[in-house]
Amino acid sequence: MVTTLGTDGTPHIAPFGIARTGDDLVIAPFRPSVTLNALEATGRAVVNLTDDARLFAGCLTGRRNWPLVPATTIAGVRLATSLAHWEVEVVRVEADPVRPRFHCRSVHEVTHGPYASHNRAAAAVIEAAILCSRLYLLPWEKVEREMAYLATAVEKTAGMREREAWGWLCDRVAAFRAEGRTRTSSIATAVR
Amino acid sequence: MVTTLGTDGTPHIAPFGIARTGDDLVIAPFRPSVTLNALEATGRAVVNLTDDARLFAGCLTGRRNWPLVPATTIAGVRLATSLAHWEVEVVRVEADPVRPRFHCRSVHEVTHGPYASHNRAAAAVIEAAILCSRLYLLPWEKVEREMAYLATAVEKTAGMREREAWGWLCDRVAAFRAEGRTRTSSIATAVR
Repeated sequence: MVTTLGTDGTPHIAPFGIARTGDDLVIAPFRPSVTLNALEATGRAVVNLTDDARLFAGCLTGRRNWPLVPATTIAGVRLATSLAHWEVEVVRVEADPVRPRFHCRSVHEVTHGPYASHNRAAAAVIEAAILCSRLYLLPWEKVEREMAYLATAVEKTAGMREREAWGWLCDRVAAFRAEGRTRTSSIATAVR
Repeated sequence: MVTTLGTDGTPHIAPFGIARTGDDLVIAPFRPSVTLNALEATGRAVVNLTDDARLFAGCLTGRRNWPLVPATTIAGVRLATSLAHWEVEVVRVEADPVRPRFHCRSVHEVTHGPYASHNRAAAAVIEAAILCSRLYLLPWEKVEREMAYLATAVEKTAGMREREAWGWLCDRVAAFRAEGRTRTSSIATAVR
């Protein structure tokens, strides 16, 4: 989870896959993106490590109001509940009209709590969150098939947090499906 | 990853899902199982937390020779590379002819290294390892479909360790498929 501050000091939380390339941590947001604007304007971010799958599912379903606290060495914020956080600075940008790559270096790292071990349901929620971020791009059968596959790990291994997160994503998929039906029936009506 | 010692002191490593039930950590091996025998005989085990997916894929493909070091407070061993380990003692057993449940309590916990963050490829390898443990029970189409699904996260996010682990599992699936073909053609020959 990446936390940034806008030029007006507004905090923003967003999930990103971070790539390690040599000593660099690479954050690569697609345009347009609040995180991208913040990285360009401030050159700073915090990478938050968390095992709370609700953060990923929450950000994908409009729940971005998670408690934040100030970073230690940079002008920034971190998630209050992170297991660890890395305060990073941009050292180089690979410019790109679609998806620029911000190469960052960690300037301060703190561990806040122990890793509670891999949880299959939390991993499934993260995969479902990624799926939910691409609903408009994917065939409906693929969405249904992958949600059904991921549901198995959730049913077998979810705790309270994973169950809540999974519920948010299922609601999102159901709402998208309902919208699609409305769209389709509007088109049908128009054609008729 | 659960490490145990047999009554003759032979160490054993095996992957298990550990359930938290109140204050208990529950390990539930199917019979027959080396870990089950050790839990019954010694009442002790070590739960190892790791982000190295090779351990899961390795144990499923006959690679069990991972470095071990002695536990701290119990007669036992832990993985030398674990991020953290919990030394546990059995406090209660729910007897069952198929899958007894060993309720354990942690008597000593140590963190050895920082959690390096969720990696989608490592999570996919763990799912593929579970799949590979059940090849004889599953329809071939399900195995192929799920391996193809999991391959996407591996292709996108694997590091060296995840790539090696994935290779071992793909080899296992290919070998199983080749065996199946041999079996099927033997049956065909027998029928003929």
